[in-house]
Amino acid sequence: MEFSSKLLEKAVNEMSQLPGIGKRTALRLMLHLLRQPEDQTVQLAKALESMRLDIKFCKSCNNISDKEVCEICANPHRTKEIICVVEDIRDVMAIENTSSFKGLYHVLGGKISPMDGIGPNELNIQPLVEKVKQGIVKELIFALGSTMEGDTTNFYIYRQIQDYNVTTSTIARGISVGNELEYTDEITLGRSIINRIPFEASLKS
Amino acid sequence: MEFSSKLLEKAVNEMSQLPGIGKRTALRLMLHLLRQPEDQTVQLAKALESMRLDIKFCKSCNNISDKEVCEICANPHRTKEIICVVEDIRDVMAIENTSSFKGLYHVLGGKISPMDGIGPNELNIQPLVEKVKQGIVKELIFALGSTMEGDTTNFYIYRQIQDYNVTTSTIARGISVGNELEYTDEITLGRSIINRIPFEASLKS
Repeated sequence: MEFSSKLLEKAVNEMSQLPGIGKRTALRLMLHLLRQPEDQTVQLAKALESMRLDIKFCKSCNNISDKEVCEICANPHRTKEIICVVEDIRDVMAIENTSSFKGLYHVLGGKISPMDGIGPNELNIQPLVEKVKQGIVKELIFALGSTMEGDTTNFYIYRQIQDYNVTTSTIARGISVGNELEYTDEITLGRSIINRIPFEASLKS
Repeated sequence: MEFSSKLLEKAVNEMSQLPGIGKRTALRLMLHLLRQPEDQTVQLAKALESMRLDIKFCKSCNNISDKEVCEICANPHRTKEIICVVEDIRDVMAIENTSSFKGLYHVLGGKISPMDGIGPNELNIQPLVEKVKQGIVKELIFALGSTMEGDTTNFYIYRQIQDYNVTTSTIARGISVGNELEYTDEITLGRSIINRIPFEASLKS
């Protein structure tokens, strides 16, 4: 692409470094911004910069936060005995949306994935092990995605903490609510039969 | 969506005002930026701001430029007698890529589209009419997209300048090079038969 303006070219190049945004899309976005009031672009630029420079990660759970300790960890009404292990802030937001969990979170920042060069040391695993060692935690809920990387990460953490007095569980895998059997994949369906739950228990959830 | 950080929320909200970017995509982009070095976000923010605040539009053709008069209009080797009428900078870039046009451009900034509230007065049409009135221009090439809006805009401009001594043409419409007939729509195919060109002429292009 040959640009008639270096300023436009620079903006398109920077924008197209974001995942899923190519040069054409970036150019379309820039032309959109040029048609809008200047203020919109200035606000966007300021929001991006102050997010990147001023954002903090909670000292306790590693979730994104504006304070040293995030609101969830600082909430006295939440039990410190159950910790839900998740990959990133999106998972925290998704679970918080369900209003079904009143414990704390622990954000790993990713999953073990040798293909992407992410080993246990790149993740926030050691502080979780330390928390378990302290003995306050009674249960760890593994809530990573149901993928090879998720399972590997669960197992790695399990091996680190299995000698301590802590219960571990993973979120249930099975057919989605509202789904028909015929559209469910074989592995999920097979596992959902093996891991069936008492009918009375299903009435309560 | 409930965010644990106001800074993140603000950045996601600003980003999701761009066309085609929803809140989920914006959040994904922000989490990507947070994993990258700070410098990348700072550069992006600066590039956006300086593009919006410092960019200029060429006084002559209205194309985006860093100077008062763009490089194409300032180039003494290009003829001022032929003007190619286009919608925006993307069209200029596309035609420049073909290296087949050595005249100047005139960027309208859009097409007449009553549905979107865009009338002739919202576009850069009057300066084009003035250029034609001055008598230097010998030919106008309409190179807008082949849509209802494009045709309307072409016709509107044609009516404004038909009394002056200027030739008008539109870029050829027909089947794309490399396309099979069976995949070409009826209207395009029908027109390409009506507007057939001498075979000897087709050998030259």
